[in-house]
Amino acid sequence: MEETKLWGGRFVGTVDPIMEKFNSSISYDKRMWAEDIKGSKAYVKALEKAGLVTKTEMDQILNGMDKIYEEWLNETFQIKEGDEDIHTAHERRLKELIGETAGKLHTGRSRNDQVVTDMRLWLRDNISILMDHMLQLIKTMVERAAVEIDILFPGYTHMQRAQPIRWSHWILSHAVALSRDAERLEEIRKRTNVLPLGSGAIAGNPFPIDREFLSKELQFDAISLNSMDATSGRDFVCEILFWCTLCLVHLSKVSEDLIIYSTKEFGFITLSDAYSTGSSLMPQKKNADSLELIRGKAGRVFGRCSGFLMSLKGLPSTYNKDLQEDKEAMFEAIDAVTAVLQVASGVFSTLKVHEDAMRKALSSDMLATDLAYYLVRKKMPFRDAHSASGRAVYLAEKKGIEVKDLSLADLKTISPLFETDVSKVWSYENSVEQYAAAGGTARSSVTSQIEQLRAWLKRRQST
Amino acid sequence: MEETKLWGGRFVGTVDPIMEKFNSSISYDKRMWAEDIKGSKAYVKALEKAGLVTKTEMDQILNGMDKIYEEWLNETFQIKEGDEDIHTAHERRLKELIGETAGKLHTGRSRNDQVVTDMRLWLRDNISILMDHMLQLIKTMVERAAVEIDILFPGYTHMQRAQPIRWSHWILSHAVALSRDAERLEEIRKRTNVLPLGSGAIAGNPFPIDREFLSKELQFDAISLNSMDATSGRDFVCEILFWCTLCLVHLSKVSEDLIIYSTKEFGFITLSDAYSTGSSLMPQKKNADSLELIRGKAGRVFGRCSGFLMSLKGLPSTYNKDLQEDKEAMFEAIDAVTAVLQVASGVFSTLKVHEDAMRKALSSDMLATDLAYYLVRKKMPFRDAHSASGRAVYLAEKKGIEVKDLSLADLKTISPLFETDVSKVWSYENSVEQYAAAGGTARSSVTSQIEQLRAWLKRRQST
Amino acid sequence: MEETKLWGGRFVGTVDPIMEKFNSSISYDKRMWAEDIKGSKAYVKALEKAGLVTKTEMDQILNGMDKIYEEWLNETFQIKEGDEDIHTAHERRLKELIGETAGKLHTGRSRNDQVVTDMRLWLRDNISILMDHMLQLIKTMVERAAVEIDILFPGYTHMQRAQPIRWSHWILSHAVALSRDAERLEEIRKRTNVLPLGSGAIAGNPFPIDREFLSKELQFDAISLNSMDATSGRDFVCEILFWCTLCLVHLSKVSEDLIIYSTKEFGFITLSDAYSTGSSLMPQKKNADSLELIRGKAGRVFGRCSGFLMSLKGLPSTYNKDLQEDKEAMFEAIDAVTAVLQVASGVFSTLKVHEDAMRKALSSDMLATDLAYYLVRKKMPFRDAHSASGRAVYLAEKKGIEVKDLSLADLKTISPLFETDVSKVWSYENSVEQYAAAGGTARSSVTSQIEQLRAWLKRRQST
Amino acid sequence: MEETKLWGGRFVGTVDPIMEKFNSSISYDKRMWAEDIKGSKAYVKALEKAGLVTKTEMDQILNGMDKIYEEWLNETFQIKEGDEDIHTAHERRLKELIGETAGKLHTGRSRNDQVVTDMRLWLRDNISILMDHMLQLIKTMVERAAVEIDILFPGYTHMQRAQPIRWSHWILSHAVALSRDAERLEEIRKRTNVLPLGSGAIAGNPFPIDREFLSKELQFDAISLNSMDATSGRDFVCEILFWCTLCLVHLSKVSEDLIIYSTKEFGFITLSDAYSTGSSLMPQKKNADSLELIRGKAGRVFGRCSGFLMSLKGLPSTYNKDLQEDKEAMFEAIDAVTAVLQVASGVFSTLKVHEDAMRKALSSDMLATDLAYYLVRKKMPFRDAHSASGRAVYLAEKKGIEVKDLSLADLKTISPLFETDVSKVWSYENSVEQYAAAGGTARSSVTSQIEQLRAWLKRRQST
Repeated sequence: MEETKLWGGRFVGTVDPIMEKFNSSISYDKRMWAEDIKGSKAYVKALEKAGLVTKTEMDQILNGMDKIYEEWLNETFQIKEGDEDIHTAHERRLKELIGETAGKLHTGRSRNDQVVTDMRLWLRDNISILMDHMLQLIKTMVERAAVEIDILFPGYTHMQRAQPIRWSHWILSHAVALSRDAERLEEIRKRTNVLPLGSGAIAGNPFPIDREFLSKELQFDAISLNSMDATSGRDFVCEILFWCTLCLVHLSKVSEDLIIYSTKEFGFITLSDAYSTGSSLMPQKKNADSLELIRGKAGRVFGRCSGFLMSLKGLPSTYNKDLQEDKEAMFEAIDAVTAVLQVASGVFSTLKVHEDAMRKALSSDMLATDLAYYLVRKKMPFRDAHSASGRAVYLAEKKGIEVKDLSLADLKTISPLFETDVSKVWSYENSVEQYAAAGGTARSSVTSQIEQLRAWLKRRQST
Repeated sequence: MEETKLWGGRFVGTVDPIMEKFNSSISYDKRMWAEDIKGSKAYVKALEKAGLVTKTEMDQILNGMDKIYEEWLNETFQIKEGDEDIHTAHERRLKELIGETAGKLHTGRSRNDQVVTDMRLWLRDNISILMDHMLQLIKTMVERAAVEIDILFPGYTHMQRAQPIRWSHWILSHAVALSRDAERLEEIRKRTNVLPLGSGAIAGNPFPIDREFLSKELQFDAISLNSMDATSGRDFVCEILFWCTLCLVHLSKVSEDLIIYSTKEFGFITLSDAYSTGSSLMPQKKNADSLELIRGKAGRVFGRCSGFLMSLKGLPSTYNKDLQEDKEAMFEAIDAVTAVLQVASGVFSTLKVHEDAMRKALSSDMLATDLAYYLVRKKMPFRDAHSASGRAVYLAEKKGIEVKDLSLADLKTISPLFETDVSKVWSYENSVEQYAAAGGTARSSVTSQIEQLRAWLKRRQST
Repeated sequence: MEETKLWGGRFVGTVDPIMEKFNSSISYDKRMWAEDIKGSKAYVKALEKAGLVTKTEMDQILNGMDKIYEEWLNETFQIKEGDEDIHTAHERRLKELIGETAGKLHTGRSRNDQVVTDMRLWLRDNISILMDHMLQLIKTMVERAAVEIDILFPGYTHMQRAQPIRWSHWILSHAVALSRDAERLEEIRKRTNVLPLGSGAIAGNPFPIDREFLSKELQFDAISLNSMDATSGRDFVCEILFWCTLCLVHLSKVSEDLIIYSTKEFGFITLSDAYSTGSSLMPQKKNADSLELIRGKAGRVFGRCSGFLMSLKGLPSTYNKDLQEDKEAMFEAIDAVTAVLQVASGVFSTLKVHEDAMRKALSSDMLATDLAYYLVRKKMPFRDAHSASGRAVYLAEKKGIEVKDLSLADLKTISPLFETDVSKVWSYENSVEQYAAAGGTARSSVTSQIEQLRAWLKRRQST
Repeated sequence: MEETKLWGGRFVGTVDPIMEKFNSSISYDKRMWAEDIKGSKAYVKALEKAGLVTKTEMDQILNGMDKIYEEWLNETFQIKEGDEDIHTAHERRLKELIGETAGKLHTGRSRNDQVVTDMRLWLRDNISILMDHMLQLIKTMVERAAVEIDILFPGYTHMQRAQPIRWSHWILSHAVALSRDAERLEEIRKRTNVLPLGSGAIAGNPFPIDREFLSKELQFDAISLNSMDATSGRDFVCEILFWCTLCLVHLSKVSEDLIIYSTKEFGFITLSDAYSTGSSLMPQKKNADSLELIRGKAGRVFGRCSGFLMSLKGLPSTYNKDLQEDKEAMFEAIDAVTAVLQVASGVFSTLKVHEDAMRKALSSDMLATDLAYYLVRKKMPFRDAHSASGRAVYLAEKKGIEVKDLSLADLKTISPLFETDVSKVWSYENSVEQYAAAGGTARSSVTSQIEQLRAWLKRRQST
């Protein structure tokens, strides 16, 4: 039985079944079956070009690999005892299908370069999928922002009402952060899409394998520079894990906002039933489960990132079995973000906005800064104006009235610069329109943000 | 179809299949099927005591739950669409089996207190299993240390040969650390084994449920003090995740040592074939995969711990769906450590020690400290003695000889205190026997460590 | 100049100033000056007992150490170039003060056992301080809960109003979690308070040093079992770092709740001015900075914990310089939690509760569960009752009225079991009083929680 | 006294000194004094362009800021009580120097956009410094690799001798990884160098401030798109923290290798005295402290990264005080990596290589793969060849001889394909020269790697 293992020639001892299971990776690395086949097909072509297999042998192997591919598609591929990883399983099956020639496929190749080739192929393609979902989400947000540009609501800092802003401005603040994530993802794709195949176990490939050919065949953008680095470098995994983490940290912020906005007390939005659930005990409730799950996933994915970084820390050069931690971390993080992006798109495209509640949450004390600006425009230094405005707020509080209801006389006790035109301060529309500098919440600025993001999306979607 | 959900009464919207899957936990929480049944059986008994179900109804429910239990044992239990978690699945099945009476089981109970009861039951029992494996590992180490007490080898600091020590002393240094882990685990078991059932969703249980009865029925050590804390507190999960992390950090240290000791260059030990593997490309190799996997798992489990802590951070009180991250983290960490402890026991009970190579690695410059102590015993202040010993090492290096081969004349150029009895310094046995203070590497001290650990084990195994 | 270094005898090379600074720890380990002196004084007494210094030499050294102690107190102790750590600095100074005898203090002692003795002494004493602050905080919470026991407000799950609860019940839910933290801290103190001194560099102490004497002298609870473990084991640091993290995760939950409760929209509480700050731009604002800082610190301290765990992972046995990361992590975490606990006590003892706003936030749909319980008490199976109650909520929503304003006729369309006594359901006081099972929100249960916590506190304060 | 605070107008309460200290950031944010001044100078120019201050007022403010700058340079700037951050301190001082006009500087600016402008300026410039050190390190490695290209030594996988490789190949494997880090750093610099100033507290700037002018004045590459994102987005901090972590994980790998290579048992290298230290107890030792410190720093910096990510997770939009955690994390991580890169350069430029020891560590069983390749070249399928080679190794072991000393007769018992030319297999030079495919360890491949890295460096150094 030991003989079915790749290193069959040497070991004589017995086996601990717990160790066997501990060591085996087939339960998860089988996920890369298609990539493993793709890589092997390219490799046998390179072997043929190098004269290490004949044309006939190549065709045998290609046909065998195609049959295995079909078996996977038809869900008839069988994993057998002793198939400790997807590579062993495929080689074992190939031998069953085509006989001894199968033994030539591994010529000059090691599982060390094979596995990382599979991973890079898999990740590269999954990054593309991720990118599509990301663009879809950003697009949903931008178009929603465009439609609802006239809705005002409180901008909060420290969760306290700060200044009136456009609801669109809030949406775009998150869309802009996600667009940076998308740009980072493009860079990571580039660094991921580098061919390691042809690096062997450590020293390189000892046969005249044409790595540029392999690269083209597998649509890589470049080939790895150094075989030791190629077989054991996992910074591409760390990068994507961190990317997933950062992206989810961004979405945890969106979630936190929306969860709070959907409380009874805020009442700004209602999630669609499709993205919320009820309570098993309290029939009146509607919980923002989708957003809580997203927020929770930020922790999980961060855990995968930090866990893998710790696995890597202090490892010596080249392949060590500790690296086996790379795949589950990668799969789980990508799966989580892929689901999250779709759920987030769903949430954004279906949530209901309660414009009235938003408007009602605006209060005149939020215009205190505007009161200060009023004085600034009358040439009072800002610090004094800020202090005067503060005194006005305080005075109104003491009188138990809103600051906008202070009489001119009251205001004049604070500064002689107040005049009847101070009444214009008390318009939320006037307030937001002040912020016309780039990036501000004025209609023109928000429109410009929308345009810039649309152009940004267009550049990406045409590719 | 919506009606099969527990909150069936209210929702009217449609459903996003990705959200459905995102929300569902049955794929992993089904692992607690036995605990869920156990908890429900205890609960229905409490309901009967409180007059909320009749004796007949109770018996119906108990029989139904027993049937479900059998279905799981026979692997015939079927999870159906809409069974979003194990609790829903069981309630659905119970209704199929016994009809409307099933609807009484959930009286006053919420999934919030139900799920955390299941988790605590599961964890409590798995901690006991973990403890057995831990004691087995420590015992293996201690008994090996007892047998091999006379083997000397270099003690390293900073990976540089420092002082001769007993191989047993090295083994025990790790066993002692693990014994602290075991003690921590005992404490965690206590804090885990606290009954939350009867806390409802948040406010408590509105019926005269006897929680002390529930606690006894389910063999908990105590009942939770506050219902809000009980339903959302997950520090017991954090604790065990951290425990798993710390334990694996300890074992990563063992692994690192043994990996280095098993290099050709050190050559101190050889792992059994059962715990090492060969190379697919290099037939001469024997890799310490088991130890590398253990070292790698330290990262993974840490990741689960840190990920869950991040999920918890900043959450508001009570149940939020973010908490759904708790179970997979717990299962995975416990599984990893359970496997690791067994593999580590296997490694320790089967590795071969190369006494000759160990002895050969001792060199007289490692006795430089002893040379200093020689002078100290002749009343030279330690700092001067240390400096003198350093000069002796340096002199030997310059002469290209070992320090023990310096002539008495040479030594006298460094200090007149050197006399012919200096020759006794150059015995490794003499060297280790100096360290007879408690905790040292002298035979008597090591024997005492062994005795203390044996007594410690005995106290635990008799319980 | 090299000669002032402890290992002066050997090195001949030159020095890179960046490396010097990189290597030096005096800038932070000087914080343990008092512990270092205390440890050295105990050690010289043990040397005297062992006959390694004379009574006169011992007195010289004790006097010298006392002088150094005074210099620190008077802030006249000078750190000189070459004092790379506090131990070197003290030994250098001792030699200046008392001459060659100073060189005897280090006999059989290594910086490896010295530094970890200092750390354990420091931590043990700081844990006691931490415990005092912790008990103070819990006491503040419990006493506040006792006073405000009659205030009701909404209990939330998923941030949605769920069921009416007592404000005290909410306070206690956090106090109970903190009491578990306190219990953990007691255990950690025990494991910290173990003497490593007498372990030397690795192999133990080669002289007849009485470690039990040392232990008693320094008020340790036990002595370490194995010298290699003693000098390099840092699980006591990991434990306290994790403890700090978990405690802050608990307090981040308190903070999150209170930040939300202090929004304009909730309006349940107002922080004292002492624990909030204003805005440099918006004079009307009052931000809960104290709580945000606490929540933010959870991240920082977690970072120290996870960072140190990563530093440890995969290290070989015994002292490696990587361990130098231990001290800053420990100091920073302890400082953070020490400040946080005091700030949190301040927050709790000064915040204002707005009972009216809390009461106003209760709405009759929060009694939907009670409506279901009403039916349960009339013998309807809970599931049906829950569903019926859900239909009532839905009907009220459709009619645009509150559920409590549904007519009996309306209710009867849902179930014939509804009768005139259903009106009693619509009392929030009645609602909370149902939850009289242990841990519930009924007055009696909350009072019992208060009593249990008071007794718990009393047990701790009398020690 | 309260009046000296920026929000002076409103608060009436008293102050908790612990809270004051908890809240204050001046002890660390003073580090950005130069950036804060630079930003304020640009801002007052923009105010003047917008007509909000006169030319004279602008000049007053500019002169005042210049004076403050000088005070910092001369170390005469005094931080006073109430200076809670660097911005307050500067504004307070400016007022002392130039009077009321100082109060105009803050017009339309908030600390929210001010602080993040300071941070981006600081980080941008420190990234440039980091990059210089990085290029210096890579250059050192590449040039060392060029000089020592003919030194062979064992390539290890799983810490077991695998195949002979060039020492240069090992060096370059790390240089290549670092070059990817450098490329990432370039991207991060771009994303960091984006102007947030002009975003106010949240809504934008309400005056006609020309942000493009500000951007040019401060040499930013772009301006931020959305004011809410600009003031609270901290992904640029996360990115650099992760970058520092990944870079140190790479260097922890280098360190681990070199620490092992510098053990007595391997004996491949000796660190310069400048980067190693001795033992206080064992005069013969020379510890690779520099490398251990680097390895340890990987943990610390990771801790800062993960800690800050946790602080961010789940925060609501815009500025919350939790963000105050950003600066210390950033400073500490940058400081650590800046020191590490220089120390690593020092280590690489001064370590001694022991060519003989390296050569001696090569053993003929490392050529087992080559033996298999020999058979492959004779047309045996690789799997069979691998198995045959394994049997040869096993046979040699059984005979107690080296595999190269097996007689042809012996070999022929394994395969008839063995012939006299098998003797050529036993040359390490022949072995490495096989790996001539791109990225391999043949002289030509290694030379090509060196050339590519030199070109890469040149492109960067000319900019």
